[in-house]
Order: sequence, then structure tokens, then C-alpha cells
Amino acid sequence: MIEFWYEFASTYSYPAAMRVERVTKAAGVALRWRPFLLGPIFGAQGWNDSPFNIYAAKGRYMWKDLPRICEAEGIPLNKPVKFPQNGLKAARLALVAGDRIADFTRAVYTANFAEQRDISDDATLSEIVTKLGMDADAMFTAANTPENKAALKAQTDEAIACDIFGAPWFFVGDEPFWGNDRLEDAIAWAKT
Amino acid sequence: MIEFWYEFASTYSYPAAMRVERVTKAAGVALRWRPFLLGPIFGAQGWNDSPFNIYAAKGRYMWKDLPRICEAEGIPLNKPVKFPQNGLKAARLALVAGDRIADFTRAVYTANFAEQRDISDDATLSEIVTKLGMDADAMFTAANTPENKAALKAQTDEAIACDIFGAPWFFVGDEPFWGNDRLEDAIAWAKT
Repeated sequence: MIEFWYEFASTYSYPAAMRVERVTKAAGVALRWRPFLLGPIFGAQGWNDSPFNIYAAKGRYMWKDLPRICEAEGIPLNKPVKFPQNGLKAARLALVAGDRIADFTRAVYTANFAEQRDISDDATLSEIVTKLGMDADAMFTAANTPENKAALKAQTDEAIACDIFGAPWFFVGDEPFWGNDRLEDAIAWAKT
Repeated sequence: MIEFWYEFASTYSYPAAMRVERVTKAAGVALRWRPFLLGPIFGAQGWNDSPFNIYAAKGRYMWKDLPRICEAEGIPLNKPVKFPQNGLKAARLALVAGDRIADFTRAVYTANFAEQRDISDDATLSEIVTKLGMDADAMFTAANTPENKAALKAQTDEAIACDIFGAPWFFVGDEPFWGNDRLEDAIAWAKT
């Protein structure tokens, strides 16, 4: 089984989120979706913004590298209206999406990185949920309970405790794999 | 043609250096070896140490990830006596190694990451050069001329001007590829 840890603002998590279910299924490996927040992790190392914004050359490279990856994967990429976007609400909704978490997650990434939508906007998220045939009111109510807010915080605390420092991140048991380009290695590890 | 930019202290440059000649030759792509220094680049972003030391979780991950890569490549890895090592002298020597630069480069990486030698030590470097059948005295004299010191500085300045922020780094024309795991992408790009 592979745990897929992702943050909705994270650029390289986008191609990972779009392909992780397909490639794990093809390999016969179980998948667990684990949304979390990078903000508190970056904050703890003194960053109040994405490292791609803080380190300009790194950002320029990422915006050359990511389009190559998306093109190879056959997924659309249009620079987000804002980078990074605030993925807090989307992450809380993902935690209450139940067996629709994969569909919900892909729809949010598509809104962020292909459709130039603001994923911190309730209207965007409500439209996504409704299009997926889910009850938006019920979802938002469940997402905003103190218990669910605590659950997302616990998820992020677990990420910190597991030494996660970026996204996407894969765990096979205790074995860590960082980055979209390590997904195949994680699958190979899971199969041994 | 692929330009291979590397820093002798850089962990992920080790597997890249050991395989770059083999895989580019197999693909029929020309290779140019470009040693440079990361220190001034890291210094400019406020780092006076390797990011793998500054960001502890990142360092712990790298020391799990690099052994997997080296094992898959069939190259030995033993944690260096010190990390990062000072690659200044080795880089100056590489610039005067002429058509032996590939052999010299691999020998220095092996000393650093497999043999637990101090690559900033003249004795280590002298032994490497001598074992390769080169004239150590002549090499050191050539390496330490003001012209050669300036040449290494110019190489590093060129790296900064090209937006290089890490190593290993590959260029195919203006197209940048960062990391050992991007070498195959760089080769594919060079062949199109």
C-alpha cells in the first residue's frame, strides 16, 4: 500500500494527483490519499511563502520543468491565478469526501492548475462538489466542524512527525519517497 | 550535446558523474564536463552550509534516498568523512585535466563518497592524479595559476548567470535539467 501525501497548492503534486490512482491500480498496489498543509511545515523552517517564490531561480526552473512533465503526461497546465493558492478549505473538504476523495482531489487540482480558478473561494469549491454529484451544504458543514478542523491539523502534525518536508510525498510503510518523479520507485518498493 | 555541471561536494552529483559518460555515449550524445562551485551560489541565498545540513529533515531524507540510487546503479556509497567537503582544489584541478577530466572527476567522487577520503587534502588529490598516470606537480602548478583560479570563478559566474541553483545540472542548449533523475530527460531532449 502507498500513502500519497499532497498539498493542494503544490505544483508537483498536480501531475502526481492526476496519475497516482491509475499507476497504482495498474501495479495492483493499494492507495491511501493523505491531504495535508505545507504552510506550517514551511513556516517552521522560516519560510512564509513557497520556496519557488522565495528562491527566484528555483521558481523559474520549476515553471520550465512542470510544463514538460504535464505535457508528457497529457494534462493541461495554465499558470494559476495566484501561486501558491490557499488550500486549507479544499483540504478540509477532502477529509470529508469519503470514497469520492480521488475525484474531489483531481477536480481541485484541475481547477488550480488548468482552469485558473481560485480554490480558496467557496464558490469554486461548491461548484466542484456539486458537479461531482455531492451535497455541497452537507460537505461544507462536515468540513467546518471543530472535529474535522482538528483532523486536518492532526494530519499535518503527523506529516511533520514523519519528517515530510515537501509534496508530493509517498510512504510505503516507513520508506519515504519525495516528489512526483519518485512514484515509480515507491510502487517498485511496494511490490517487493 | 549535453553540458554536465557538477560540484565535487554534491551528493546527487556522485551517481550522475559515475554514469553520465556511459549513458550519453550509449545515446550518441556529446558531453561537456563543467565543474563549478555551489558555495557562492548558496551563499548568495543566505546559506553558509549545504541545504541538507541547514534543513535537517531534507538531509535525513537525502541520506535515505541516495543509498537507494547508488545501490540501483551498483556504485558503492560510504558516508563522507565530512559533509559537505570543500571541492575548490579538486575543481581547479579538473579544469586543467584536459581529456582526462572524466577519469579525474570520477576518481574524486569515488574518494569522497565511497572511500571516505578528504578531497580537500593535497595528498588525496596528488594520489588520485598520480594513479591516473598524470604529473602531479605539473597539475598542481597549472591548477594554482591566477588564470586558472579566474577560470573557475568565471565558470561559477556563468552558472549563476545561467540560473543554476543546484547540482548536478544539465543543459541542452538553453534547456535546463536539474538533478541526477533528469539525465534521461536531458538525453531525450538532446536527441529531438
